[in-house]
Amino acid sequence: MLKTAEHLYLQIADRIEQLIEKDVLKIGDKLPSVRMLSKEQGVSLSTAFQAYYHLEGKGLIEPRPKSGYYIRFSPRKLRDIPKTCEPVKKASEVTVHEMIDRVFAHMAADNILKFSIAAAADSLLPAAKISKSMVQALRNMPGNGIGYESIQGNLQLRRQIARMSILWGGVVSEEDVVTTNGCTDALTLSLCAVTQPGDTIALESPSYYGSLQLAASLGLKVLEVPTNPVTGVELDYLDKAIPRHNIKACLFVTNFNNPLGSCMPDTHKRELVHILEKHGIPLIEDDIYGDIYFGRERPALCKTFDESGIVLACNSFSKSLAPGYRVGWTLPGKYKEKVLRLKRNHSIACASLPHAAVAHFLENGRYEHHLRSMRKQLHTQSLRYLQAVADYFPEDTLVTRPMGGFVLWLALNENINTYELYELALKNKISFAPGRIFSLQDRYRNCMRLSYGNPWNKQVEEGIKTLGKLIRKLKG
Amino acid sequence: MLKTAEHLYLQIADRIEQLIEKDVLKIGDKLPSVRMLSKEQGVSLSTAFQAYYHLEGKGLIEPRPKSGYYIRFSPRKLRDIPKTCEPVKKASEVTVHEMIDRVFAHMAADNILKFSIAAAADSLLPAAKISKSMVQALRNMPGNGIGYESIQGNLQLRRQIARMSILWGGVVSEEDVVTTNGCTDALTLSLCAVTQPGDTIALESPSYYGSLQLAASLGLKVLEVPTNPVTGVELDYLDKAIPRHNIKACLFVTNFNNPLGSCMPDTHKRELVHILEKHGIPLIEDDIYGDIYFGRERPALCKTFDESGIVLACNSFSKSLAPGYRVGWTLPGKYKEKVLRLKRNHSIACASLPHAAVAHFLENGRYEHHLRSMRKQLHTQSLRYLQAVADYFPEDTLVTRPMGGFVLWLALNENINTYELYELALKNKISFAPGRIFSLQDRYRNCMRLSYGNPWNKQVEEGIKTLGKLIRKLKG
Repeated sequence: MLKTAEHLYLQIADRIEQLIEKDVLKIGDKLPSVRMLSKEQGVSLSTAFQAYYHLEGKGLIEPRPKSGYYIRFSPRKLRDIPKTCEPVKKASEVTVHEMIDRVFAHMAADNILKFSIAAAADSLLPAAKISKSMVQALRNMPGNGIGYESIQGNLQLRRQIARMSILWGGVVSEEDVVTTNGCTDALTLSLCAVTQPGDTIALESPSYYGSLQLAASLGLKVLEVPTNPVTGVELDYLDKAIPRHNIKACLFVTNFNNPLGSCMPDTHKRELVHILEKHGIPLIEDDIYGDIYFGRERPALCKTFDESGIVLACNSFSKSLAPGYRVGWTLPGKYKEKVLRLKRNHSIACASLPHAAVAHFLENGRYEHHLRSMRKQLHTQSLRYLQAVADYFPEDTLVTRPMGGFVLWLALNENINTYELYELALKNKISFAPGRIFSLQDRYRNCMRLSYGNPWNKQVEEGIKTLGKLIRKLKG
Repeated sequence: MLKTAEHLYLQIADRIEQLIEKDVLKIGDKLPSVRMLSKEQGVSLSTAFQAYYHLEGKGLIEPRPKSGYYIRFSPRKLRDIPKTCEPVKKASEVTVHEMIDRVFAHMAADNILKFSIAAAADSLLPAAKISKSMVQALRNMPGNGIGYESIQGNLQLRRQIARMSILWGGVVSEEDVVTTNGCTDALTLSLCAVTQPGDTIALESPSYYGSLQLAASLGLKVLEVPTNPVTGVELDYLDKAIPRHNIKACLFVTNFNNPLGSCMPDTHKRELVHILEKHGIPLIEDDIYGDIYFGRERPALCKTFDESGIVLACNSFSKSLAPGYRVGWTLPGKYKEKVLRLKRNHSIACASLPHAAVAHFLENGRYEHHLRSMRKQLHTQSLRYLQAVADYFPEDTLVTRPMGGFVLWLALNENINTYELYELALKNKISFAPGRIFSLQDRYRNCMRLSYGNPWNKQVEEGIKTLGKLIRKLKG
């Protein structure tokens, strides 16, 4: 009997695999429930479950919490993952980047198919629901919210942020939270609190160009640290680099790094905190993508393992809820008083109403509900885009496998200059982020960041196809 | 006939003066219109007008645009104006001020009578009307305003700000405006754009403590420039100090300076721009009190006379409309690109909805209407407070005569330490800003800033009376 059952589940699994192969079942498609499959196929529940378990083991399908099984992708066809970069010889003076200005300028342009923005399309955000919370905030706040918010920030919002810390294993109280004008403001205040102009800080390589420019504007030098596309910063290298380059602080995106997509395993996070404690330097942890996870659980933070208050964890609701509301925060650990004084000196307080509106939205449990559906949709999008890269880009293309966030990082053939490709793509009304802007070194010329924040559709598919054609053209 | 008429107007004027003397007519009371007076007294219109003109000449009454004549104050009783401070020997390193932290902390405290905040009481602000504009903005904005605002800022708002420049003689287009999170953010971005850490900047003396702390947090040194309580910065001194102290930029509050209340005459403004052009350094002009004028016309800016783009004029709607909305701007002149890049790097964009709401409020002419009534009320409050100081403070008290803004600056007997007075006052549930925090030098120990932002009432009068008693106690 056991043998037959084994046979049976393999037969079922094989049939599903063929359907995937023939593209009948597409990436992101939901499979029948185990119960449904057992009925349809006239097999036991455990046989049906075994079939799915087998396919999951092969990486062809995946379970999603409280939702069932979904088609993943055909791993055979997918491109390989890019390599960790080589270490650099020395820290570099931050210089001005006309290239970054240009890419920023095109982000605001209309009628361009934008693969360049590491964020969700507006259609994925709950505009109507958050607006209702705004109207409530207008009604509920004393003086309709025209008065100054306290310097530390809206109390209700800080309570909700503290409450959410359970999800990443934090033990945070409302007193530990300082609200900010979005995450970038949180990073600015946190960096100012722990560095002096002229100091060197460590960033991942490749690094989000905004962070490179922020460092430049604060008069900081940057050491780019080799970063593994799956597990994040190379810790052994960092441990040695800190004294060698007299590094005063680290600024890392530990969860679903932009642009690499890497997510540090807990063991690495714990070790990173340990290394920094040993050297006596702080970590600014940019967790802006942490809520956008595709796995079963929200990843932890380095902050989770921080017992001495050396981690300043920064985040916002700009990627997940309402970028225009500019609602962010930092958990500045032992640097709280410094951060508060900087906030007071640089901008006094945050806009009262948007912060109160987000607090209201969170209090009603709407945020978690919204995140669940947004994560599912983004996960599916990520897989479709990955598949399209496999289908339309040259075979020597390398690509990451992000398990959260909004972006793919691609390494093309070494002969391709992606800034040239960028200019070509713009003529075709397509934009992406060329790899060169993710480093102050002359690096990543053949790389590019492709956002999957836009819902999958014919236009997107055509866009990726066009990019593939342009790459082949440049190559030839 | 002429003689009799002369006689007549003097008789009428005398009667009114006696009524003022006996406190029957109180500060801020409206007088009958000229027409009414002529009817009541059975005299010609020109005689009635002459009577008022005579009283105006004596400083007892004053005309207000489109409103008529009001009781001013009895100048004989008023205290003298404080003197310009002496120059300092050298620029000072900015150090941290526990004192300022303490004053800030008490600003947030409840159940204290606050003479410490240079702003209008919430009751003077149009909470309900601006809320309506917020609801309109929610309705009108694409995606209900959840998306990122452009880096330069809301276009409708920039248009309205440009339109308002007519009032101060500016020729500004929407392209010249960069919006910010309130005025402090505008000052921060502007200072960052024109200085490097370690540079020396010139500020007025006394100076708003927030600006001193802002300079500190940016690693700047500060030279405090002697400032006349009526006409502002001493230009001859400044002209010589710039090369001597290697000053890289000036940050001045040219209109209704905080705390002095000084307003630079146009000739001074013109000359200041000329001096700075000669030395090739920029002026950051903090115009946050410019709209709160008590005279006939809005004062000009240095920006009005700036032809080479060296003035970065900063302002906000925080003092006049809705502090909690955090809507400010800078007109950065030739530093626009630098300011834009800094804004992008430090916080990306401003909160979409509050900026759109203010734009809507302005488009409908509501702002000018609101300002007219707010200015009248504040003017009256300023006079009542001035009179109360004359009534309840020791005779050797010196006090400014601001023609705009929210604050009086007082110099008490040299033996009075106003920080001691501050501690005593706090025990009596009263706060003000002690003079010492308005300088990095050991200065102004006997001075204090008293805000008249709270509407005049019995409690306020009692508060000032109590302060007077505490001063006498300290003196004895």
